[in-house]
Amino acid sequence: MGQHSFIAIDWGTTNRRAYRIDHGVVVATERDSLGVTAVPPGGFAAEVARLRDRHDGAPLLLAGMVGSNRGWVDAGYVPTTATLETIAAAVVEPMDGVRIVPGVRHVADGRGDVMRGEEVQLLGAIAAGLAPADALLCQPGTHCKWAWMKDGALSAFVTAMTGEMFALLKAHALIGQDMTGEVAPGDAFAQGVREGARGDLLASLFGVRPAGLLGLRDRAEAAAFVSGLLIGADCAAHAGAGMVHLLADPALGALYGRAIAELGGETLLVDSHAAFIAGATRLWEYLP
Amino acid sequence: MGQHSFIAIDWGTTNRRAYRIDHGVVVATERDSLGVTAVPPGGFAAEVARLRDRHDGAPLLLAGMVGSNRGWVDAGYVPTTATLETIAAAVVEPMDGVRIVPGVRHVADGRGDVMRGEEVQLLGAIAAGLAPADALLCQPGTHCKWAWMKDGALSAFVTAMTGEMFALLKAHALIGQDMTGEVAPGDAFAQGVREGARGDLLASLFGVRPAGLLGLRDRAEAAAFVSGLLIGADCAAHAGAGMVHLLADPALGALYGRAIAELGGETLLVDSHAAFIAGATRLWEYLP
Repeated sequence: MGQHSFIAIDWGTTNRRAYRIDHGVVVATERDSLGVTAVPPGGFAAEVARLRDRHDGAPLLLAGMVGSNRGWVDAGYVPTTATLETIAAAVVEPMDGVRIVPGVRHVADGRGDVMRGEEVQLLGAIAAGLAPADALLCQPGTHCKWAWMKDGALSAFVTAMTGEMFALLKAHALIGQDMTGEVAPGDAFAQGVREGARGDLLASLFGVRPAGLLGLRDRAEAAAFVSGLLIGADCAAHAGAGMVHLLADPALGALYGRAIAELGGETLLVDSHAAFIAGATRLWEYLP
Repeated sequence: MGQHSFIAIDWGTTNRRAYRIDHGVVVATERDSLGVTAVPPGGFAAEVARLRDRHDGAPLLLAGMVGSNRGWVDAGYVPTTATLETIAAAVVEPMDGVRIVPGVRHVADGRGDVMRGEEVQLLGAIAAGLAPADALLCQPGTHCKWAWMKDGALSAFVTAMTGEMFALLKAHALIGQDMTGEVAPGDAFAQGVREGARGDLLASLFGVRPAGLLGLRDRAEAAAFVSGLLIGADCAAHAGAGMVHLLADPALGALYGRAIAELGGETLLVDSHAAFIAGATRLWEYLP
């Protein structure tokens, strides 16, 4: 076990993905549903020991919600502008051979935002040359992150509850009854994107049922339209006419790609696993 | 029992309010929770008979969700521009002595909207001189209606799911855990209004938790801030710098009044019961 062999873990709320990295190369990966909320109170040390036993006692680098007040140890936040160096300098060591990556906070104009885990991907994407040093990166999902990178550093970011809102509306809103159809980046989605970009979200959402009642839109298209509304509102508020680098799975990548194109911008899909691995590897090298 | 004695009923989804009107004067009112959803299938005729028995067999004018496909009889919608005359001409008579008021639909630029019950209040407010013939009227609530009146007629309207969204977020969103404080038109509310007017609602809502985490806002103020965000977004999208006539109870009226003032407009509170009574009385006179 040298400095150049370790296990990087992206340990989120509901999932965990581990990468065994030797000299910058991934030699093994494993993924399971043992997210932070599935670990019993006081159970992190034992869980980490089990993981290390499976990998010849290799040291661990943990990123994500494991470092929050709902995880093992609260690793705090480093401020923007953040780099892999400032993050490495603030890493927390809850036990010998185990390091937890802090999150990043951004405060500007009285508004604050936080991330935890995404910073490794974002800075890794730049480190690996998957995106230029000055770029707008987007990580769609339950909580969609938009990150402005300057000179390779994480300069500013904002989070939108786009995915959570879709799930909330589908499960609990009156319009949820209509949101049973498939969501795909087709015409109904694009119509939603243009409507969402108008900036009248609360009225546009109400309009879903009248559109069905009055025969203006097929009810089977309501879910795709609402997805377009929310993603359109998100992209119109945060993407410009330039290039957005998307760290996304293919399905969400296709939706955000279509939305941004509809609004006059361009996108490039970045491999988020490769970005995480590059970020973790570089971070490991920078550790004090 | 002449033409000038009748019972006007505002029969909504969860509540019912009845006004016994003699020669334009309310001589008795009753309110109960026997909304449309509380009446068993096929139970409307019996319920209406009970009501008439209590009032010497007076004829009935029913408005609201009782005339929807979830109510007794679907009374359809008249198109905008709507007047009390066009509505009276489309009234449905499910049984002798009982009339159901149709709703109003508005379709423009590919978007559609509907109302059912609110039209009696809106046109009644003008008929009673509670608002001028050319005015912007607002009915805050679960589904907030904004109505543009021209020459005394209902020319256009839009509905925002402002109140429903607040309830959804409080009950089911991650930020709902923080939304336990009181909602009043104070500083946190006004801060939310200005933030909501920025037109980045999905990010502003996400920002509620980081603001608490980073000590930027007291968690006890989260509910008031979120109310301000939603009402601010609603008002910024629909009210201008001019006068808005609010058909609202005092609590919601105070919130919308503060929000509109914060955004540079003015408001006047209109008595919505007086408006309904005036609208129903005039409608009764216009019946064919």
